[in-house]
Amino acid sequence: MKSHRKELWFETPHRRDYLNITAQVEDALRESGVREGLCLVNAMHITASVYINDDEQGLLRDYDAWLEQLAPHAPTTRWQHNLTGEDNGDAHLKRQVMGREVVVAITAGKLDLGPWEQIFYGEFDGRRKKRVLVKIIGE
Amino acid sequence: MKSHRKELWFETPHRRDYLNITAQVEDALRESGVREGLCLVNAMHITASVYINDDEQGLLRDYDAWLEQLAPHAPTTRWQHNLTGEDNGDAHLKRQVMGREVVVAITAGKLDLGPWEQIFYGEFDGRRKKRVLVKIIGE
Amino acid sequence: MKSHRKELWFETPHRRDYLNITAQVEDALRESGVREGLCLVNAMHITASVYINDDEQGLLRDYDAWLEQLAPHAPTTRWQHNLTGEDNGDAHLKRQVMGREVVVAITAGKLDLGPWEQIFYGEFDGRRKKRVLVKIIGE
Repeated sequence: MKSHRKELWFETPHRRDYLNITAQVEDALRESGVREGLCLVNAMHITASVYINDDEQGLLRDYDAWLEQLAPHAPTTRWQHNLTGEDNGDAHLKRQVMGREVVVAITAGKLDLGPWEQIFYGEFDGRRKKRVLVKIIGE
Repeated sequence: MKSHRKELWFETPHRRDYLNITAQVEDALRESGVREGLCLVNAMHITASVYINDDEQGLLRDYDAWLEQLAPHAPTTRWQHNLTGEDNGDAHLKRQVMGREVVVAITAGKLDLGPWEQIFYGEFDGRRKKRVLVKIIGE
Repeated sequence: MKSHRKELWFETPHRRDYLNITAQVEDALRESGVREGLCLVNAMHITASVYINDDEQGLLRDYDAWLEQLAPHAPTTRWQHNLTGEDNGDAHLKRQVMGREVVVAITAGKLDLGPWEQIFYGEFDGRRKKRVLVKIIGE
């Protein structure tokens, strides 16, 4: 069994951003030499998500508005987590809706994705350096 | 390490449907010959989910009504994604609540599920052919 | 390839509780002897979650109030699932928001977690014995 580990670093310009990271995960897979296996991609921070969906600008705006409606940022006094001095209580909730991680099949040396599946980093408390972990196991 | 890949195809009669696919995933596991490992089951389309929960008709109606409340289909103008000419903006959101994939342990050649755990395909934009991927790795 | 399986049992005092189970998962990893691989941790019951987020008391209260707002327990007649005689319809919905499982990378014999990542058992229909499955594969 082979294994490969890679960290991807991001610093987004806004509090919330949605980045297509499929090409970076494909790079990690190529480096691994794995042909058959599984690829885990997870946010290492708890106010961010890795998820799979469409790379379409209208949809990204829909996600952003919808998450803000489900778990608004302001008033920040709404969330008890913010009593710690943080202002990112909402980000911990938004991340649960979108998920922490994806597991992608590896087949014949490629990410085995459907036709529109793209891997995204969803940032809900950005403007600082944060990491995604790619872990690949297989043969 | 062994690996096995299988696609399951579905064409549901309604826009939204909830199908118990546990038996089909068990078939794929039998074909694989894997005794100890992991089984990934994921929607290959981004307006559908694979999730695990109860096969109980009242609950399936609850999921449907609840998801429609969280992310309504109509008015379709509510979602910017629909400016592309699609009418499935809501389906991309519903799928995030229910999730893209499940990973199930394989123990002694069986899916290692709890007593009420059933694997479901959740369709949010049906009435056309769509796929689920089963990828099994182990020994 | 090595594999290791362990069940963790919980009986929470309240209907809803949030338990940090990171140390128990680390114990299972030590027992496995796996140095590189993947660790699946999933609720075996369909009214509970395993998720990763912060071990901060204000946030746990935020999750609890937010989930209760998204899918209220009462009136129990709101959920058709409760026509079966159960009163846990809401718990099946809350669990979908928080997720069934996490998959954690194993690197150099450790859970490869970010600085604030903690593994939680989220119980939404407690006060009885329920199980979490830890399945580890790797080398």
